[in-house]
Amino acid sequence: MFDPAPHFVHTLRVYWEDTDAGGVVFYANYLKYFERARTEWLRSYGFEQESLRTHEGLLFVVTQAGARYRAPARLDDLLEISVHLEHRGQASLAIAQQAVRPARGEAPATLLAEGTIRIGCVDAGTFRPRRIPSHILDRLP
Amino acid sequence: MFDPAPHFVHTLRVYWEDTDAGGVVFYANYLKYFERARTEWLRSYGFEQESLRTHEGLLFVVTQAGARYRAPARLDDLLEISVHLEHRGQASLAIAQQAVRPARGEAPATLLAEGTIRIGCVDAGTFRPRRIPSHILDRLP
Amino acid sequence: MFDPAPHFVHTLRVYWEDTDAGGVVFYANYLKYFERARTEWLRSYGFEQESLRTHEGLLFVVTQAGARYRAPARLDDLLEISVHLEHRGQASLAIAQQAVRPARGEAPATLLAEGTIRIGCVDAGTFRPRRIPSHILDRLP
Amino acid sequence: MFDPAPHFVHTLRVYWEDTDAGGVVFYANYLKYFERARTEWLRSYGFEQESLRTHEGLLFVVTQAGARYRAPARLDDLLEISVHLEHRGQASLAIAQQAVRPARGEAPATLLAEGTIRIGCVDAGTFRPRRIPSHILDRLP
Repeated sequence: MFDPAPHFVHTLRVYWEDTDAGGVVFYANYLKYFERARTEWLRSYGFEQESLRTHEGLLFVVTQAGARYRAPARLDDLLEISVHLEHRGQASLAIAQQAVRPARGEAPATLLAEGTIRIGCVDAGTFRPRRIPSHILDRLP
Repeated sequence: MFDPAPHFVHTLRVYWEDTDAGGVVFYANYLKYFERARTEWLRSYGFEQESLRTHEGLLFVVTQAGARYRAPARLDDLLEISVHLEHRGQASLAIAQQAVRPARGEAPATLLAEGTIRIGCVDAGTFRPRRIPSHILDRLP
Repeated sequence: MFDPAPHFVHTLRVYWEDTDAGGVVFYANYLKYFERARTEWLRSYGFEQESLRTHEGLLFVVTQAGARYRAPARLDDLLEISVHLEHRGQASLAIAQQAVRPARGEAPATLLAEGTIRIGCVDAGTFRPRRIPSHILDRLP
Repeated sequence: MFDPAPHFVHTLRVYWEDTDAGGVVFYANYLKYFERARTEWLRSYGFEQESLRTHEGLLFVVTQAGARYRAPARLDDLLEISVHLEHRGQASLAIAQQAVRPARGEAPATLLAEGTIRIGCVDAGTFRPRRIPSHILDRLP
């Protein structure tokens, strides 16, 4: 089901690079879209990952990803990718995401793909799990 | 857990294009790896998807993908991607897949990522579901 | 040299998917960036390529691409990709493009990559060259 | 023109991830193919880039790339990517590359894309140019 009031939405365009010979967006690319939206969501709270990596030696890595594909997207489509923080632990987050093609003219809004992505906080050098710093956790919704 | 005797294994190399600034394979790219292995698995039974698309008007599309990430892979790693047909329906397949870095020297074999991918058979023009032709279904393991 | 007054600029963000284990944007991805900017440039004149493909049976394909890489871009960088129509023939276009990281704080603007891309107009089915329809050519700058 | 006796050839398969909605390999992906072949070419002389990066603090980066696209490749095509060292300097290499679909049945061999890639040796941390170590340069053809 559509999330009627997603907490955060990132809008992006489908380009040639995203499509495959079936004429639609290649399935793995929705994970790229989801990642872009999470990155912009983090940025909206003041966190840039390149800075977290180089200054705090911290990476957010995906530990689990699940996606259901509902309808195909095509070249030139404008998509809305939502981010909804479902669960926050001390070293991990679970984020629900949807890719939606908004209504345009007579075409109704269409849910294209949705999923849940689990993120872990790790040391950028060793990839060992570590706590999400409180200055980050406290600022998330 | 490792699949001790996977039905089909496709070997591939990690290149620059696969990695990200964390120094490891970007998470969405495992779905590309899984897709390559499924394509080679189908080919091993005599089916080429470009031919299925142009001659039979048929596409296999991913309807659901789930992956768990266990350990990072790095540039130059040689990976083994396995394919195990878990379930076959009349219009869909469920396929379990693993990405493993085999033992090399003193380093033991490592499970990097694993998941289950659900595939649906659709009409190449309309993307409406259709039955998997029996000449295909009968030949799969 | 910087193009001091580019005709068209598309702004985009560098995400994890764009970077490689060297910590910078993977060289082939600048061709994706250039393509996105050309697509938006065409759209700014009223042309959507999915519509050209399905309604006019026409594709614009790259026949030649040359790029020089000047400086690396990193995760989270905001880039400006410019489009300058250098030459228009009856069945082809030559387009000069630059990727620039604009000045930010004390950091000056930096030219990251630049190149010329030659585009040919082809039949979407046969890939044989065809003339660019005059309703398109007449509207370009 | 075909290189009749390329020095090194890397064979690869076209997968869904490589194609676009035009039904053919996306133009930027030939640069990925070229890179894979250069990596295997280096490996054939005993050099692994992950090892060069972590043990010698050295990266080979592309400073210039030019490609001409001759004919489209499609899903399931098996391609041969050649590597020919055209020029070696103290801090850079120029490498000529071709992507060829070999003859199959009655279909003749087809040159799909060709280009020249210039590579520079840089410090992995600063991206400043440095000499290619003689133990590498001396072993190249």
